[in-house]
Amino acid sequence: MSSPLPSEKALVPFVSVENMMRLVHHIGIETVLTELTDVIEADFRRWGSFDKTPRVASHSGEGVIELMPTSDGEIYSFKYVNGHPKNMAQGLQTVTAFGLLAEVSTGYPVLLTEMTLLTALRTAATSAMAARHLAPRGARTMAMIGNGAQAEFQALAMKAVCGIDHIRLYDIDPLATEKMVRNLAGTGLTVTACSSSQSAIENADIITTCTADKQYATILTDNMVGSGVHINAIGGDCPGKTELHRDILLRADTFVEYPPQTRIEGEIQQMDADYPVTEFWQVLTGQAIGRRDASQITLFDSVGFAIEDFSALRYVRDRLRGTGLYQDLDIIADPDDPRDLFGMLQRAKQAA
Amino acid sequence: MSSPLPSEKALVPFVSVENMMRLVHHIGIETVLTELTDVIEADFRRWGSFDKTPRVASHSGEGVIELMPTSDGEIYSFKYVNGHPKNMAQGLQTVTAFGLLAEVSTGYPVLLTEMTLLTALRTAATSAMAARHLAPRGARTMAMIGNGAQAEFQALAMKAVCGIDHIRLYDIDPLATEKMVRNLAGTGLTVTACSSSQSAIENADIITTCTADKQYATILTDNMVGSGVHINAIGGDCPGKTELHRDILLRADTFVEYPPQTRIEGEIQQMDADYPVTEFWQVLTGQAIGRRDASQITLFDSVGFAIEDFSALRYVRDRLRGTGLYQDLDIIADPDDPRDLFGMLQRAKQAA
Repeated sequence: MSSPLPSEKALVPFVSVENMMRLVHHIGIETVLTELTDVIEADFRRWGSFDKTPRVASHSGEGVIELMPTSDGEIYSFKYVNGHPKNMAQGLQTVTAFGLLAEVSTGYPVLLTEMTLLTALRTAATSAMAARHLAPRGARTMAMIGNGAQAEFQALAMKAVCGIDHIRLYDIDPLATEKMVRNLAGTGLTVTACSSSQSAIENADIITTCTADKQYATILTDNMVGSGVHINAIGGDCPGKTELHRDILLRADTFVEYPPQTRIEGEIQQMDADYPVTEFWQVLTGQAIGRRDASQITLFDSVGFAIEDFSALRYVRDRLRGTGLYQDLDIIADPDDPRDLFGMLQRAKQAA
Repeated sequence: MSSPLPSEKALVPFVSVENMMRLVHHIGIETVLTELTDVIEADFRRWGSFDKTPRVASHSGEGVIELMPTSDGEIYSFKYVNGHPKNMAQGLQTVTAFGLLAEVSTGYPVLLTEMTLLTALRTAATSAMAARHLAPRGARTMAMIGNGAQAEFQALAMKAVCGIDHIRLYDIDPLATEKMVRNLAGTGLTVTACSSSQSAIENADIITTCTADKQYATILTDNMVGSGVHINAIGGDCPGKTELHRDILLRADTFVEYPPQTRIEGEIQQMDADYPVTEFWQVLTGQAIGRRDASQITLFDSVGFAIEDFSALRYVRDRLRGTGLYQDLDIIADPDDPRDLFGMLQRAKQAA
């Protein structure tokens, strides 16, 4: 085969799962989490620059496939992500993802990357961003309810960004907790495995819920939650999937990413359509108050928003430079004369 | 590097531009166009099986980036496609695209492919599908107004599927017409270069308009169009971009893909929101009448719809088997224990 090589514009850098893992280790996972938190926060501070739209979801009996696009007018991004709670029983990931950055001015892609790992990292970084503004001062202990694929990332982000040094774990499956204890060995975190959620949240300053069942679950009930805590609710993230009893919401002040999406997907899907929430970006810009006092319960009702993926993709693009941790994909047809797509096809035959 | 190989489920077949060109030549371009026409028609006949949504567009001053998802409940597809008319002046494609198929039951991708070439092929096949049901009997001559990147594909599809043997060309840029004359040499088509649209459409049974300027253009005026022709309007495909004078629409019967999208993007954006149109799939199933008589003007106001991409992606997946014309991409993180994403990341470090 001797057909002409594709031009540089036609090649899109692709970061495989293996290269993403190498990139994370090259930088250091806690540094990645800290830098990602800062990059996401910087983008949240310029919230008004972004095109925002609720994600485009295709629901089925087994799960959901979603596309999450956004743009700041210069760079466009989207993420493909699925959520299939029954996958785990088949040995598959509940959530897998990949994403893309493109130039708005030409529409040409400039980065394609795995985002299963990157989503775990950016979700943890987003939690840490909210917690560093909402958690009680001097918070050191986090309860982690749900010890699945996201859990260690949450723990390390809270350590790196918020100074958490003690994690108390609970999962309905003790094997998941054992896995998490094993994985966090050597990270510098004190890790306590607990036999109930009630026990896990004892003396916790931050409570993170991250469970996968697609149902209206009640991981936390009202009498379990004391005053002053910050709740980071990750797992209630699609219609019909919640984790908190609504009475907790009534006692808490609720902070969200993008209300039109969170009202469909978040914990607040249990509440009326005009249930009061604060957009978290407004806390960053000073347009809204975050934590008011030491007894307030703050709730970050996080469902994941496209801007977080945008930030993560930009971060990977910046950090990829000079590492060589990508392959060039010939995914864009780029004939010498842009009107001569057919001629390019014909010449490929002659060259074959 | 000796980290464990990704499992089979984690690898997604990727068809590069080069492999797509090889696949097309392996099958034969006219065979591809004929088979694609049949596959698209088969999917249009089961229109009710599909999730349908207008594409998700991100508009800017320079162009548009769109995501076009659909699903039949078993297979999900989406296409990423841009439209940037000014790209050509920079030596870039006006339209580039790639797409993906995934299993609805797991959300796992099963095919990633370039779609710049594939979109040109499926657009031509869609035109041919409509023309074989709407064009006047015994049609042999097509006028092709706009001789850009899509034009040769349109000509060959009309030859292979509808028996067109004479193509009359016009473009405001004579170099585009020269390119098309050159590219169609040896295809068996009689090709006539014309000096005006008026001249190009003389005696044409089918008039195809496929121009790229993003404006309300008037490629055809009412007095140019005689009775009995079939008009295949391709280029009017986004808000603010049309090709036909509205008086032509008033004389024609208009057939469309998906009305909610066409009313925003097609020629009928010039008309009232209740302007009568026929959904083309209903012609196929017998629920609506196509061509009524020899004097009727039929207009296929085509903007491109997600189901056509779904069909094209399925076709590529089927025809790819046994050819080896793909690479395996490590785009899905797939730890042995699906809850142990973090452990997979850690083990990659140890293995490095």
